Amino acid sequence: MDKNVTFRNLQIGDLEEVFLLLQQLTKIDYSARNLKECWNNFTSNTSSNAIVGLLNGKTVAYGSIVIENKIRGEIAGHIEDIVVCESVRGKGIGVDLINNLVEIGKTKGCYRITLLCNESLNTFYEKSGFSKNGIAMKKMYK
Amino acid sequence: MDKNVTFRNLQIGDLEEVFLLLQQLTKIDYSARNLKECWNNFTSNTSSNAIVGLLNGKTVAYGSIVIENKIRGEIAGHIEDIVVCESVRGKGIGVDLINNLVEIGKTKGCYRITLLCNESLNTFYEKSGFSKNGIAMKKMYK
Repeated sequence: MDKNVTFRNLQIGDLEEVFLLLQQLTKIDYSARNLKECWNNFTSNTSSNAIVGLLNGKTVAYGSIVIENKIRGEIAGHIEDIVVCESVRGKGIGVDLINNLVEIGKTKGCYRITLLCNESLNTFYEKSGFSKNGIAMKKMYK
Repeated sequence: MDKNVTFRNLQIGDLEEVFLLLQQLTKIDYSARNLKECWNNFTSNTSSNAIVGLLNGKTVAYGSIVIENKIRGEIAGHIEDIVVCESVRGKGIGVDLINNLVEIGKTKGCYRITLLCNESLNTFYEKSGFSKNGIAMKKMYK
């Protein structure tokens, strides 16, 4: 565990650095988008809970957990958009990030947390108590 | 396509039959739960969109799609809790169910729809244009 990284809830002022981080995950063209608009869209859906990891004042990690209310009364969590800056990988920051998101899920009452990932990340997520449970399937529109 | 099945949005009056259906998917003890309470919890989170398939007045299919607002402005869909009554499987009702959920996702502006499933359901979801994209990982609390 990297003791120098602190995690806290996402704030609007983080967006510029978070967007740069997320480009390391998936490159998208968001040049026409407005930060304020993105923030308003994101916060209009209260199901998403996002956190950042800060190291020496710089945003080095981002992740979110989406809370789903199931029809029979359970609450489920979906971990999404996990990224740690390439420059500081291999220090355990990713595991801390996941554990922080798992804690949020626990607080929200999740009976289950799931995520989709590349097969190669199996061992990484096992460190936070996840285990493989089937496959992920995707359909794209854009 | 089974022309006799009609799909519509879930209503509170469907809950009893939907709960029986979902027991075919995962058995849970919800005996202490109140239908009205489950409905209120479910509808308090507006991210979930659930539909039922009706055949001769009986609920034979249920499924939902959770809408996620991404931080960079995109909208993603998560298909959850797909079930078709054992008594009417193999008639294409499941494919219709998925296609109806995909349509909802499209209307909501999803750029991507994902789902988690057993490896054996790969071919089933391929019929609706999904393709395998990594693995699913899970962590349980209860």
